Amino acid sequence: MSTSASNPYPLVGLRDNERATVMVKDVTIGCGPPVLIAGPCAVETETQMFQAAEMARAAGARLLRGGAFKPRTSPYSFQGLALNGLRLLHQASVGTALPLVTEVVDTRDVETVAQYADMLQIGARNMHNFALLRAVGATRMPVLLKRGVAATIDEWLYAAEYIAQAGGEAIVLCERGIRTFETRTRFTLDVAAVPVLRQLTKLPVMVDPSHAAGERRLVLPLARASLAAGADGLLVELHPDPAKAACDGPQALIGTDIPKLAALMRADHGIRE
Amino acid sequence: MSTSASNPYPLVGLRDNERATVMVKDVTIGCGPPVLIAGPCAVETETQMFQAAEMARAAGARLLRGGAFKPRTSPYSFQGLALNGLRLLHQASVGTALPLVTEVVDTRDVETVAQYADMLQIGARNMHNFALLRAVGATRMPVLLKRGVAATIDEWLYAAEYIAQAGGEAIVLCERGIRTFETRTRFTLDVAAVPVLRQLTKLPVMVDPSHAAGERRLVLPLARASLAAGADGLLVELHPDPAKAACDGPQALIGTDIPKLAALMRADHGIRE
Amino acid sequence: MSTSASNPYPLVGLRDNERATVMVKDVTIGCGPPVLIAGPCAVETETQMFQAAEMARAAGARLLRGGAFKPRTSPYSFQGLALNGLRLLHQASVGTALPLVTEVVDTRDVETVAQYADMLQIGARNMHNFALLRAVGATRMPVLLKRGVAATIDEWLYAAEYIAQAGGEAIVLCERGIRTFETRTRFTLDVAAVPVLRQLTKLPVMVDPSHAAGERRLVLPLARASLAAGADGLLVELHPDPAKAACDGPQALIGTDIPKLAALMRADHGIRE
Amino acid sequence: MSTSASNPYPLVGLRDNERATVMVKDVTIGCGPPVLIAGPCAVETETQMFQAAEMARAAGARLLRGGAFKPRTSPYSFQGLALNGLRLLHQASVGTALPLVTEVVDTRDVETVAQYADMLQIGARNMHNFALLRAVGATRMPVLLKRGVAATIDEWLYAAEYIAQAGGEAIVLCERGIRTFETRTRFTLDVAAVPVLRQLTKLPVMVDPSHAAGERRLVLPLARASLAAGADGLLVELHPDPAKAACDGPQALIGTDIPKLAALMRADHGIRE
Repeated sequence: MSTSASNPYPLVGLRDNERATVMVKDVTIGCGPPVLIAGPCAVETETQMFQAAEMARAAGARLLRGGAFKPRTSPYSFQGLALNGLRLLHQASVGTALPLVTEVVDTRDVETVAQYADMLQIGARNMHNFALLRAVGATRMPVLLKRGVAATIDEWLYAAEYIAQAGGEAIVLCERGIRTFETRTRFTLDVAAVPVLRQLTKLPVMVDPSHAAGERRLVLPLARASLAAGADGLLVELHPDPAKAACDGPQALIGTDIPKLAALMRADHGIRE
Repeated sequence: MSTSASNPYPLVGLRDNERATVMVKDVTIGCGPPVLIAGPCAVETETQMFQAAEMARAAGARLLRGGAFKPRTSPYSFQGLALNGLRLLHQASVGTALPLVTEVVDTRDVETVAQYADMLQIGARNMHNFALLRAVGATRMPVLLKRGVAATIDEWLYAAEYIAQAGGEAIVLCERGIRTFETRTRFTLDVAAVPVLRQLTKLPVMVDPSHAAGERRLVLPLARASLAAGADGLLVELHPDPAKAACDGPQALIGTDIPKLAALMRADHGIRE
Repeated sequence: MSTSASNPYPLVGLRDNERATVMVKDVTIGCGPPVLIAGPCAVETETQMFQAAEMARAAGARLLRGGAFKPRTSPYSFQGLALNGLRLLHQASVGTALPLVTEVVDTRDVETVAQYADMLQIGARNMHNFALLRAVGATRMPVLLKRGVAATIDEWLYAAEYIAQAGGEAIVLCERGIRTFETRTRFTLDVAAVPVLRQLTKLPVMVDPSHAAGERRLVLPLARASLAAGADGLLVELHPDPAKAACDGPQALIGTDIPKLAALMRADHGIRE
Repeated sequence: MSTSASNPYPLVGLRDNERATVMVKDVTIGCGPPVLIAGPCAVETETQMFQAAEMARAAGARLLRGGAFKPRTSPYSFQGLALNGLRLLHQASVGTALPLVTEVVDTRDVETVAQYADMLQIGARNMHNFALLRAVGATRMPVLLKRGVAATIDEWLYAAEYIAQAGGEAIVLCERGIRTFETRTRFTLDVAAVPVLRQLTKLPVMVDPSHAAGERRLVLPLARASLAAGADGLLVELHPDPAKAACDGPQALIGTDIPKLAALMRADHGIRE
């Protein structure tokens, strides 16, 4: 398979306007109603994870998220529960009947994480970790590929092409904000990436408003904007007690936000070309 | 009136959650249904302006826009029709009964432009032209203040404060994209600016999706996203024959886009907090 | 004079490798030893200005700088002494026999400022204020054109072209840092702009390390880097008592820095192409 | 070892102004004359590598660089010679008696690369690959840690802290340009990072002008600027025949540049605090 000027993305590019859907167990992402993936930033305790999974289900989530391996800026921050975390995530996933999306950060962990997860997440910090992209692609499992904070849309599509070339064609792209000079938000949500990607790739496109916002009160407006721009779904963080969260508490939705999020997911999203 | 750490924006800041509306003739911006401002980038000929004004009206615009003084990157690009342009704009405004929003770029022109316009626009390139901000404020006319392409939200609010301090309290902020590393769009629309501003200022907030996109096909998805994020209105460029436009043709909506834009403006925008 | 793809800058572009020099009274900028322009950010009092001018002379400055009209982010910050400031600047310039560089921020002030200054400065915030560029160019005086914080090198050259087209061909470009995501410095000094401009324009290129740094301790290393990259000179801020400065005190050099700066200006700068 | 507000970098932070040096075999980096690391972007053939190593030695390099595992934006670009490349690099290193610096991109390769290299390089794309940072740190070998293109200086220091915490305290930081809006250079060299880091860390700081520039003609001016700003050394790419280079040919220095680079390295760099 070779690349050309007319189609730099032979595997993930858009051809004849044919769009791909991605199945995660019985959940279809793309070409249909938007899908909510929700859960805590990190799995912390059995109780926290159980409550968060119930919140996710109440919000209308079709997939459960949560991190057991946490890539953190400082080595002195909470790094995740690792294998124990995977077990708790799996238990919550089974308990709520929501398939599990969780992040893998090391090529050596791919096999283990694949045993517990239904969809593997590549985080923003690893979008250019090509060895990991290939290893994840080789599992042929569904992959949620977040955009790197300084990655152009084209670099992001090349990252997807790495996964696809290794065998993993069930890829969902996830915009999560890019790094700019503005400091009132944690990152700048590039909502235009959604319609731009529609012109370039067959892959479904989701948006994570939580990491872009960095603040709870901004998450729902950004979620609405993302669906209005045509996103195939949302990745949202929530927590039963954000004040005690081991990471990213300020951006986690709380109990009183859940009915609003549920209403948003149930709304008629019309033609979202 | 002094500033303090707790309220750096004594005139435009949000206090007791009281929001301002801005009246441009009989049109109210803020605290109600979203308002559309539409028209060509630049006024070019009587025919072009007449047709564009009709398109604006058909799209549901309440205000007409168009530039007679065009700030252009190169001195060898079309610079606008100046006074003749103001006359054509005024004529189209009267003909369609749509109040006129037009840009002023020089303190020496403020008085003249004020005779023709119903609302004065400060463009992105002049957001830090403090002398112009003061001169425009002193007219006490309504002002549409675009965000500078590298301005933080706080710098933008300070620019509004300059206008207000000079006497012009009827200010509408307009997000139009910031400069980032991404090149697939002309600028990166910072849609999060809308909910962020809701927390900081009493002023209405509009969005210009046309300049952010730089490409026609992206304008409507960004327009939808902006309203979904809670914007009080849209500023959209259109043209009867974009291939012949003297400036920014690729981003101008065309005839077939108008019904879609009209439908968007008529839609139920629900609670857009 | 028309522009073309092969030479978008007919007046300021480089042709046949011929470089321009700019004379400010008896001082030559370009094609020779680097020139120091130094002085306080703003003129505040007669004593402050007199002392600052003496510091500038001791540092080896050939030109004196200082602002009477200060563009400030907040309208509640010190805005400069205006006409009284111009008089104090002129007095200090005459007293030290250093020609005066000072900023003009409003087309209506150009004539007045031109009576006191030997070189007119366009600040970063006004690089896209095309009316001001034309008004300054029409005086035919030497102009110091700072780069806008979000301006590409090409946009900056177009700004120079505006000045030249209006009659002012004695233009010196001044890099002063661009806006990026890094917060440890006030702006990011784009030192590569110096050699890039050498390939594109005949105009001399200076660097202002003070605004880029935002902190005194970084100014001299950035000054050295700028000269090593080939800059034709430096624009440096200093103050006799920065703790009391009305603006930008933290980046002003102090008495003990002056001998180091003087040594830097006297050093052999070798081939700095 | 705990972190605190006063010292977020317990292992790599600056304490009592004590600076670290890093030894790579008999070469000392830091607290002395600047060190040149030079070589091709990628090892391609035995002849190419042999010639490039000779060029490096002629330029005054003390260490040889070259990549066997190439992280490339597109999966359809040359990905490096892998193990064969390591063997050729090792051979060139032995032949020229220049210790070898080469990149590792996968935790699973660390052991193998460590057998051939004298210093392990973490590339910009992997600066946030924390698993790799830990794996490299555990070898206790010297590490060259490049800055991520969107990493703040603080995030970069945290990455160094990850390596140090895993056991690898011989770390050299390498600035290589950050991603900004400017397109005339491949990246924007943040030369101010050098003096900023002097205030924050005990680690030596080098600069890679080649990747920042993206163009041969800019490399030497940026190299001069970097040393003038106080860098402890340079990482420079060169190639015997850049037109045929498998990657990054346009930024590789060629034969006629070598004497200039050698002269720069031999020059008196004075007090470069």
